[in-house]
Amino acid sequence: MAVNPDLQKERNSATFDVTKLTDIVYGGKENVIRRRYLQNLIFQDKYLQSFPPWWNNEREDHYDIAVKKAVYVNKLIKELNIPYGSEQFYVREASACQESNPLGLHQIMFMPTLEKQGTKEQQEKYLVPARQYKIIGTYAQTELGHGTFIRGLETTATYDPKTEEFVINSPTLSSTKYWPGSLGKTSNYVVLMAQLYTKGKCHGIHAFVMPIRSLEDHKPLPGVTVGDIGNKLGYQGMDNGFLRFDHYRVPRDSMLMRYAKVEKDGTYVPPSNMKLAYGSMVFIRALIVGDCARSLAQACVITTRYSAVRRQTEIRPGGEEPQVLDYQTQQEKIFPLLASTYAFLFTGTKMMFEYNRINADMEKGQFAEMQVLHALAAGLKAFSSEVTSAGIDRLRMACGGHGYSHASGIPKIWANITPACTYEGENTVMYLQCARYLVKQFAEASTGKKLSGFMIYLNNPVKQRSDLNDELRTEDLIEAYEHTAARLVRVAAMRLQSLMKAGESMEVARNNCTVPMVKAAKAHCQAYVVRTFSTVMKRPDIDSSVAKVMNTLWKLYAVCGINERLGDFIQDGHLNGSQAEMVSNKMLELFAELRPNAVGLVDAFDYPDQVLQSCIGRYDGNVYEALYEYAKGSPLNKTDVHESYYTTLLPLMKGELNFNTPSARL
Amino acid sequence: MAVNPDLQKERNSATFDVTKLTDIVYGGKENVIRRRYLQNLIFQDKYLQSFPPWWNNEREDHYDIAVKKAVYVNKLIKELNIPYGSEQFYVREASACQESNPLGLHQIMFMPTLEKQGTKEQQEKYLVPARQYKIIGTYAQTELGHGTFIRGLETTATYDPKTEEFVINSPTLSSTKYWPGSLGKTSNYVVLMAQLYTKGKCHGIHAFVMPIRSLEDHKPLPGVTVGDIGNKLGYQGMDNGFLRFDHYRVPRDSMLMRYAKVEKDGTYVPPSNMKLAYGSMVFIRALIVGDCARSLAQACVITTRYSAVRRQTEIRPGGEEPQVLDYQTQQEKIFPLLASTYAFLFTGTKMMFEYNRINADMEKGQFAEMQVLHALAAGLKAFSSEVTSAGIDRLRMACGGHGYSHASGIPKIWANITPACTYEGENTVMYLQCARYLVKQFAEASTGKKLSGFMIYLNNPVKQRSDLNDELRTEDLIEAYEHTAARLVRVAAMRLQSLMKAGESMEVARNNCTVPMVKAAKAHCQAYVVRTFSTVMKRPDIDSSVAKVMNTLWKLYAVCGINERLGDFIQDGHLNGSQAEMVSNKMLELFAELRPNAVGLVDAFDYPDQVLQSCIGRYDGNVYEALYEYAKGSPLNKTDVHESYYTTLLPLMKGELNFNTPSARL
Repeated sequence: MAVNPDLQKERNSATFDVTKLTDIVYGGKENVIRRRYLQNLIFQDKYLQSFPPWWNNEREDHYDIAVKKAVYVNKLIKELNIPYGSEQFYVREASACQESNPLGLHQIMFMPTLEKQGTKEQQEKYLVPARQYKIIGTYAQTELGHGTFIRGLETTATYDPKTEEFVINSPTLSSTKYWPGSLGKTSNYVVLMAQLYTKGKCHGIHAFVMPIRSLEDHKPLPGVTVGDIGNKLGYQGMDNGFLRFDHYRVPRDSMLMRYAKVEKDGTYVPPSNMKLAYGSMVFIRALIVGDCARSLAQACVITTRYSAVRRQTEIRPGGEEPQVLDYQTQQEKIFPLLASTYAFLFTGTKMMFEYNRINADMEKGQFAEMQVLHALAAGLKAFSSEVTSAGIDRLRMACGGHGYSHASGIPKIWANITPACTYEGENTVMYLQCARYLVKQFAEASTGKKLSGFMIYLNNPVKQRSDLNDELRTEDLIEAYEHTAARLVRVAAMRLQSLMKAGESMEVARNNCTVPMVKAAKAHCQAYVVRTFSTVMKRPDIDSSVAKVMNTLWKLYAVCGINERLGDFIQDGHLNGSQAEMVSNKMLELFAELRPNAVGLVDAFDYPDQVLQSCIGRYDGNVYEALYEYAKGSPLNKTDVHESYYTTLLPLMKGELNFNTPSARL
Repeated sequence: MAVNPDLQKERNSATFDVTKLTDIVYGGKENVIRRRYLQNLIFQDKYLQSFPPWWNNEREDHYDIAVKKAVYVNKLIKELNIPYGSEQFYVREASACQESNPLGLHQIMFMPTLEKQGTKEQQEKYLVPARQYKIIGTYAQTELGHGTFIRGLETTATYDPKTEEFVINSPTLSSTKYWPGSLGKTSNYVVLMAQLYTKGKCHGIHAFVMPIRSLEDHKPLPGVTVGDIGNKLGYQGMDNGFLRFDHYRVPRDSMLMRYAKVEKDGTYVPPSNMKLAYGSMVFIRALIVGDCARSLAQACVITTRYSAVRRQTEIRPGGEEPQVLDYQTQQEKIFPLLASTYAFLFTGTKMMFEYNRINADMEKGQFAEMQVLHALAAGLKAFSSEVTSAGIDRLRMACGGHGYSHASGIPKIWANITPACTYEGENTVMYLQCARYLVKQFAEASTGKKLSGFMIYLNNPVKQRSDLNDELRTEDLIEAYEHTAARLVRVAAMRLQSLMKAGESMEVARNNCTVPMVKAAKAHCQAYVVRTFSTVMKRPDIDSSVAKVMNTLWKLYAVCGINERLGDFIQDGHLNGSQAEMVSNKMLELFAELRPNAVGLVDAFDYPDQVLQSCIGRYDGNVYEALYEYAKGSPLNKTDVHESYYTTLLPLMKGELNFNTPSARL
């Protein structure tokens, strides 16, 4: 079918070279070409294309298909020798975008934990068969009663020197492992996090590896109770599971002993350095920033294209109905999130770069920047997932009624990414980790210490009045963010101090400051994002037409952020009332300025229709045709007349109702 | 099982009489008793209790069960002679809370439209059999291409005087009716909204009644294409449908002719008065405010009880893990929404009261207050649904990982109420309707005209500086809201004026003001809610202990609202920086003050466990037991070993993979 003329018009009128922005998004033209090549292999694969559409599947089909796809794609990846990292990601994105992968945790948690924490012997024993999928594992940490607070986990591993075994036990109901992915039905092995007891003493949480299902017939082993935890808002293809142990015995070498050890006689040998454990947390949280950017990007593509095609209402009586994208209110719904998408994309890349840099330092024994990175990764994981989860839902509603249908593709994207607010550290806890670091840094800065890296903004002298004017100079905008973040850190720190002076204990005082501390952490994170995004326009590899539109988008991001939490910026008079008014007017101007490039900016993400799986986000804009086809495929349309007619509606119409179970007591 | 001691402790420490607040919520003790009696009938009904739990059903079961429940409950209601209105609502709430009712639109849209717009003869012909369910109808308005903008609908009804018939047609793909509930499979009749053409002229949208399926065998009639629109984010039990007509002929009396008419020869007779049509829109939008309050209430019950039972992390190292509800950040997530719930509950009641009062005036031919009510209902529908949809999602995340499971009950509540942001008028359009009225009123006030009712705040002289201090006097808080609303209306009006002075047409200027106009409408609505909520404490029937906690809740509502959009209140200096600081400190104090009554405030909603259907919101607080039971009931747990093991995982482990369709081209 021909491309919808409204969309074609948008594409013709973009002021920049979309392909050059795509090159920036994927780190170079070669990567774009390679990504398309790999994804096209998947789209042309007969087996993968033989599955029914995602939206009509029932829970059991979802799981079964997810297993089949995962196994098949792993085989492909091996056969084609596709390297780990983004290339494998592109293949998975094409085969099951925003869908669950029941073998994913085997690869990203089970095996890496064995690699990092297992001894050489343990790697030989477990990692080698895991690589060949002779065993399939997952990572069992979260329990019914405890999530982010890992120290509170209750599962016990008690060493018995007589038999040289650990006795694994679930002493309470709340100690039941609950939520780990791939645990319910798929895995026959787990890495288990449990409280280690030896010689009558608890040594805290340690990792153990053990079978939970028979390698003969996949049945749960004696002493093990395991199953799926039931239906959820999303993750239909994933067998998130529960797991209980009843005095289940495993040999001493089940404990991963590269760092901490339990000797044969039960003597506990503590690890020499705990700091290395931070590394993988930072890595995963930095990855989440990118995940959020990609999910938000997909929702932006769908909403923007649909808003260009959808015509509604009249601006002039009797006139043509305008494209919804022409409405200022629609621009206000989409454009700040489109700006956030690019902001998170660049921030995610930057975080990964910093992780690699600082990780290299750490391997050389230099831990100076570890804390700043850890705090930033925690905060940015929370900030990006919070904005993304709420933002995708706003984009769904910006598509009107059709957004609510799975035909739009948006509910699926949202349901798959919203758990990022909870996993790998619940967002509020993450903000507080970040904030505690900020408060400490503030205290050091107060004593005159010179801070390093991004933190130096806490050293800046307070500038009472901003010079921000309608030129929207980069340095003024950044200064406004950093000034405000510094002020909010100060507010939180001062409140903490004053509560302690008033006689509260450190702990109680801290709890009574958590709301302002979260606020400070958010301001810090957004300031970091604003500064990071501002550097993109200066990259040597950027085309000037792309740099220009990125500059508009950056300003829009900065201005919308000020407008959104205006009180923070004007409470101390850094911005005054008329600057505030100027900012809100500028925001509307920037919406209008960005408008002609909106479709170009989402096209640049280069998501094929097969990845988006959206009737209303199609590249060709033929949305009504697609929605009508979607409807015809409804499971209720298998027959013209549904069975309920014969069993219930017909008797109702005839006045011959007769329910099997009488409402006896009424 | 015994009540969880943490919950019992909360109940013992409430400072007010919970039952007396329940009496207020339901309009008197007799109503509370009657509601419990009716709901208990349902809970004890063997037939209704024989259905499997909602969360394990597949789409087709959802629909089938929804039909069966609806038919059965209608029968019960008739047998027991339960009056229309809240009593029937309580019965439905108990039988299928937050679930779809495929006979609902027959009752609330199909029959009422026939009643209001049909002639006596038409009522005889259609309404009498509809009441006996000899025909089953729905209301077909929304199309693929048009929703809230009704004038844009494309379905045509062209009068043919030769045969005295209307020819009903779907001239374009986008004219396909799409979304109407109960349309896909259930209904054999529709009230159809279509463009009326006669004598070559279009007279706009009119209502028609007609069969779409055979009364013999329920098959679609010749010329009619009808079906379900497929799977959605929620509404699994509802057959939202599509409908197309191919030159389908219906007799002249299919047009509902109480007001407008088409005579035999095709002469069009316009209606004498269109204003009465406003009434039912206002009524439904006022109902939605109450629906939102009830949905938000249920999510608050679940989250608050769970937060009282859930213990997590440490405030003091090695100390007992505190109840999550003790964390200031958790209070910040829940308490403002709990306050919003009560605010919307009282506002919904007030709106209904105003509707009845003004409707009585209108029937006497007095239309003076119609516009103010219409604007307010539009704005409050948008405001309450926006806060509720986003709020329930925040509450879900405040339950950590468990919120994501259907075991929490929250995703179901959210998915069922979030469409309220779109139906009965998309929220942005609603805000703009409200705002246009405000801008007009502002213009009148500027010319010195004395406004009436709630609008008089636009007559108030601008008070440069608020007297708000830490006593948080009611009048100062209300004044801050009304001052700010008036200022934002002024900002929008002035922008409109200045754009028009600069030469823009009225229409373009308006579109370039919609963002500030929406902002003004929100401020207006919240000011109305703040003022309405403030009157509750003065009700003669309120117990003093209840009044005290309501007063805390009201203040908390007002203070959180200021804190949330602080910029609006301080931009012009009405509140200054130190008042802003005082407000944010007061907010934290009010959280602490409310804390002991949180569980009492949610218990007062009196939702039985059977209505909440939540493992974590149970009255007895035995949440982990319930979650474990929920997991055991997962559809994937029907067998210990899932079929996917035999078909896919075992071959993988054995290295014997063999996919049916080869990945030939790779």
